[in-house]
Amino acid sequence: MLYPYLSVNEKGHLTIAGHDTVDLAERYGTALFVLNVDRLRENCRVYVNTMKECFGEDSMPLFASKSLSFTGIYRLVNECGMGTDIVSPGELYTALRAGFPMEKAFFHGNNKTDEDIDFAIRSGIGYFVVDNEDELVSLNRIAEKHGIKQKILLRIAPGIDPHTHKAIMTGSVDSKFGKAIATGQAKAITEYALSLENVELCGFHCHIGSQIFDCQPFCDAADSMLKFMADIKAQFGYEAKILNLGGGFGVRYVESHPSIDIAENIRLVANHVKTACERLSLAVPTVLMEPGRSIVADTTTTLYTVGSVKEIPGFRNFVSVDGGMADNPRYALYGSEYTVITASKAADPCDYLCTIAGRCCESGDLIQEDVMIAKPQRGDIVAVLTTGAYNYSMASNYNRLPRPAILLVGKGFEKLAVKRETYEDLCRLDLDF
Amino acid sequence: MLYPYLSVNEKGHLTIAGHDTVDLAERYGTALFVLNVDRLRENCRVYVNTMKECFGEDSMPLFASKSLSFTGIYRLVNECGMGTDIVSPGELYTALRAGFPMEKAFFHGNNKTDEDIDFAIRSGIGYFVVDNEDELVSLNRIAEKHGIKQKILLRIAPGIDPHTHKAIMTGSVDSKFGKAIATGQAKAITEYALSLENVELCGFHCHIGSQIFDCQPFCDAADSMLKFMADIKAQFGYEAKILNLGGGFGVRYVESHPSIDIAENIRLVANHVKTACERLSLAVPTVLMEPGRSIVADTTTTLYTVGSVKEIPGFRNFVSVDGGMADNPRYALYGSEYTVITASKAADPCDYLCTIAGRCCESGDLIQEDVMIAKPQRGDIVAVLTTGAYNYSMASNYNRLPRPAILLVGKGFEKLAVKRETYEDLCRLDLDF
Repeated sequence: MLYPYLSVNEKGHLTIAGHDTVDLAERYGTALFVLNVDRLRENCRVYVNTMKECFGEDSMPLFASKSLSFTGIYRLVNECGMGTDIVSPGELYTALRAGFPMEKAFFHGNNKTDEDIDFAIRSGIGYFVVDNEDELVSLNRIAEKHGIKQKILLRIAPGIDPHTHKAIMTGSVDSKFGKAIATGQAKAITEYALSLENVELCGFHCHIGSQIFDCQPFCDAADSMLKFMADIKAQFGYEAKILNLGGGFGVRYVESHPSIDIAENIRLVANHVKTACERLSLAVPTVLMEPGRSIVADTTTTLYTVGSVKEIPGFRNFVSVDGGMADNPRYALYGSEYTVITASKAADPCDYLCTIAGRCCESGDLIQEDVMIAKPQRGDIVAVLTTGAYNYSMASNYNRLPRPAILLVGKGFEKLAVKRETYEDLCRLDLDF
Repeated sequence: MLYPYLSVNEKGHLTIAGHDTVDLAERYGTALFVLNVDRLRENCRVYVNTMKECFGEDSMPLFASKSLSFTGIYRLVNECGMGTDIVSPGELYTALRAGFPMEKAFFHGNNKTDEDIDFAIRSGIGYFVVDNEDELVSLNRIAEKHGIKQKILLRIAPGIDPHTHKAIMTGSVDSKFGKAIATGQAKAITEYALSLENVELCGFHCHIGSQIFDCQPFCDAADSMLKFMADIKAQFGYEAKILNLGGGFGVRYVESHPSIDIAENIRLVANHVKTACERLSLAVPTVLMEPGRSIVADTTTTLYTVGSVKEIPGFRNFVSVDGGMADNPRYALYGSEYTVITASKAADPCDYLCTIAGRCCESGDLIQEDVMIAKPQRGDIVAVLTTGAYNYSMASNYNRLPRPAILLVGKGFEKLAVKRETYEDLCRLDLDF
């Protein structure tokens, strides 16, 4: 089993934190997201404790809530001592609704409208992570209107290629995000930010990408950013207090992926940063990180019911389930890997080679190709592991499929966090004419 | 201009059926889908009239509503004499809500649950398009429970490769859809269907894919299907009354795409079918088609507001808009092409090479790369054309972005069909715990 909280009970059913998945599927219906809150807290704790240990009390991980955003998740990560990064007014609204302390919220995004900026300032957001001059001009004007000096970080493209999927590689010069050091534009926007009356530059942010399995890309990014900060100090006499290194570490979706000791890797980054600061005569900044995937991905399992098993001689076997790209578009978008288990036959040998197909009317609607599972039949429950990140948050109503519920479980704990969407819900915005 | 209903007014603003897009953006907000109902009716009329002319009064196009599903669209296409194809209970529910005549509705999909089957029978659905034996067993049992004989078509994979994108190629043997002629499984399921008490086999369905620009793939599919039907007649004495050729014709997204005379191509398919039937001694069946994209795609324009223009020397220019892969995931999914216009500067020369980026926190969130438009600045309105199909229907709340409204316009007509989602809407399923 990929995770220690998964097991098989005497009925041969997969269990999650002791809960029988077949029983959960029957009582809550499928498709269903089952989120293990014990695991979530453990994931938060590793980042929170190690970052404080390495960088002091002001340091903290910010939960990248685009990976999974619903009201309850902000409450849970806040209880664990995390800050949050939000990327839209919708995420801001949801965090506010959860009572998340706004001083620990960082507002990201390459395109913040004037309305977004106004809303965030009125909400008392801690920091804007400013992406570009257009935003800076608007922010300064709106902050002035509110009579405040808004704390900001500037988003910088350090020019690091972490060898990850193109769509989730974010730190190169040719990116829609931030201002590149290499072009001189990072320095120019810093000088401009320092000249403005109603923004207070507190530091810099970079994000090099997602699914990074060792500390080296973070160390490279830190080198690039600290060198930049030293140049800024030399030229403008400004020393940044905060360095936000963005992102978090990679997640193990399948057994062939590496298993990573996150605490140890944070410590390695910390040592690297401290050595570099000494060399550059910089005070060690408050370092922030923004884990999302590595906080929520491995907490969650999606349960589906099998609708048909189709064997095409000479080609392959298709197992169709009652969900698909509407609740998990990651295989369609990125060819992402997943581990699949026949949850209702979890003690049977995994000797059936098949493709897990969704129910959408589209050939590309596959969850995973060429997996080995116990042979299922119509009515069996199939579990797809590690679906906590970028599944519910990217879910659509494609084919007019209602979105699944999110059920929280833990040791002796079970509670619905997000209701299943209904057909009525799907039509609630439709008007008569 | 790609379409005759687009023009530029004296203010230099793009107009849609005479409506000033800058004015619409101001009054309804952005992102906004603007759907030209006159164009929609014209698109329906071509299929409805030509199919009746070629195949008789019983023949009709079925609107593939997965391309765009909201309550009002079922009403509009019904008024134009179309049937509909639905692929889920959610689409069925929406069609029912619109008062769509169920005898003209065909229920598709590779994975219909027992609940779906029961719901569709209780709703008086015209036809099931049965995908596999698992479904057939359930359908026969549930139809028996209701004391009816349910009309069905069988979905057959004819083994035709129409040279389109892999994700939207649906008729090959190695497909999650239907039963292949080549493997003998199509014949087996036909024999099985004919043996069942509570289903009435009315004919066959195939679907070879999407974005097909000439009649040849349809003629090839018809050849394959009619040959199969002749074999079935010879072996079982059963002659199918209906042949559903699936799909519709391709859509011109950019000027380099071919422009296609749909009526003429339907006539060519009809001649081909009639000749083949004569050769095979078959009565000419009632032919159905399932256009979706070619009914709605070119009716709709998405309006966005520009948030920033970022120029990276030596690399490229990014124009960021207040939408993206959440309302239009097609570039991220398929690399789909689109035509883009600076709607608020539509009379200016298109001399600015740029990439249109969405506002989502993901590098892959692009609408289109390397387009030539009039140079915009923050606050300008950008129009993306031909977004009627697989945009709203695939839209998500990724990054917690509310989905845009759909505004219907026509000559002297303007009416909201789908309301803009609110932040409150985004949280309506979230529970306290």
